[in-house]
Amino acid sequence: MSMNDLVGQYFEAAVAHLQRIRTEEGENIERAARLLADAVAEGRRIFTFGAGHSSLAAQDVVYRAGGLAVLNLLNVPGMTGVNVMPAPLGSALERVSGLATATLDLTPATSGDLLFVISLSGRQVMPVELAAHARARGLHVVGVTSLAYPDKVGSQHPSGSYLKDHCDVVLDSKIAVGDAELSHPGAQTGFGSVSTIVTSALMQAVVASAVGRLAERSLAGEGEAPPLLRSGNVDGGTDWNAELMARHADRIFYAF
Amino acid sequence: MSMNDLVGQYFEAAVAHLQRIRTEEGENIERAARLLADAVAEGRRIFTFGAGHSSLAAQDVVYRAGGLAVLNLLNVPGMTGVNVMPAPLGSALERVSGLATATLDLTPATSGDLLFVISLSGRQVMPVELAAHARARGLHVVGVTSLAYPDKVGSQHPSGSYLKDHCDVVLDSKIAVGDAELSHPGAQTGFGSVSTIVTSALMQAVVASAVGRLAERSLAGEGEAPPLLRSGNVDGGTDWNAELMARHADRIFYAF
Repeated sequence: MSMNDLVGQYFEAAVAHLQRIRTEEGENIERAARLLADAVAEGRRIFTFGAGHSSLAAQDVVYRAGGLAVLNLLNVPGMTGVNVMPAPLGSALERVSGLATATLDLTPATSGDLLFVISLSGRQVMPVELAAHARARGLHVVGVTSLAYPDKVGSQHPSGSYLKDHCDVVLDSKIAVGDAELSHPGAQTGFGSVSTIVTSALMQAVVASAVGRLAERSLAGEGEAPPLLRSGNVDGGTDWNAELMARHADRIFYAF
Repeated sequence: MSMNDLVGQYFEAAVAHLQRIRTEEGENIERAARLLADAVAEGRRIFTFGAGHSSLAAQDVVYRAGGLAVLNLLNVPGMTGVNVMPAPLGSALERVSGLATATLDLTPATSGDLLFVISLSGRQVMPVELAAHARARGLHVVGVTSLAYPDKVGSQHPSGSYLKDHCDVVLDSKIAVGDAELSHPGAQTGFGSVSTIVTSALMQAVVASAVGRLAERSLAGEGEAPPLLRSGNVDGGTDWNAELMARHADRIFYAF
């Protein structure tokens, strides 16, 4: 196997996975986008959550140029990204019961609001508890998870349920168990993760469709233009964003 | 424009961008992978850095199933991801001179070690100072940035230079200024970011190729198998990872 093959194989795997998601998850993306567009139009509070690497796609759509200003990260200390010391603490916290309710109950989220929960396996205590508690409080929940896991890996939640069981809409990332697209006879385990690429694409596609829905309604005189942040790297972007964030301050929780 | 078009357009843009990167950046990916494989084989210290959304791809390859256990995140408080309150503080910190040197000087990184610096625009003080200071200390630097920016947006660094000017290898993400692949007549600005997808793919492809190089050498009797972490979601993964991390403890800085 030549060196170049692995890079080629990696891109092929990523592209094939994105094309599959586009085809097979198109309807679910639109269902999630409908929930998101309605939540924006109705002035609801909107949060995204993921733990560890699953937080990367959750953060990708927050405070983002070309993104909706009213998306907030539900931040749980030690669980967002891998910048916690020691890094394995993030995974350990995912197994602790009580963190989900404690976190969600300290937000102003209430009935009719919207929560995105991202979890590759969907089997840990945190995402299951968070989605279940959110639904008990009347929130709408969109889950982004791989349905390949429940078939093959047991739930860590006492109920035996998975994230997918506590959602209004499930976006199936279809990532294989182990998240490794590549192999090599000289490597002792698989490698080549595509989960961040695929999960980020799912979240960005939901936002894009929601923006389109809001833009259509706005053109029809049925609401405001979608509240989109601009890039701070282009002229006037910073002033635009400050004005937009001030206008929606009652549901933006990432800035003063 | 129908609702479905935006989702389709988003996936098409992401796929087309990945295919372009694969073709046009293939050689640079291999050059970066050679640096990474050599750094792993020689027992060097390896760090990845990004600020704000650029940190997402930096985190994607750290403490990652199917990833190299010896990749470390260079964490700068307030700058990693968007889980800082207020979120605009992250962007503000990128403009502060002195943070890069203070951060790097507190690591054990020394001559011959390797640093990945990810910055979409490559024009802010932090990534420019970090890359320049790292090279002054004898580190090898791989920059992941979009070369579309220097042509169109001024540097914020007093030298007028960009990240690209302080690197041994530059991986060009080719993201357009503004990072917005989509537009709609009812939306007041572009939307649909692909930067996390593309940047994550570049980092993962570099790791994949480096793993392949190490695996080849191992099969030829010229070194150990690539130090790959396993998924904690599969049987035995946790024990495997603990043993691997203990073996490379002298250059893993994300765990005790």
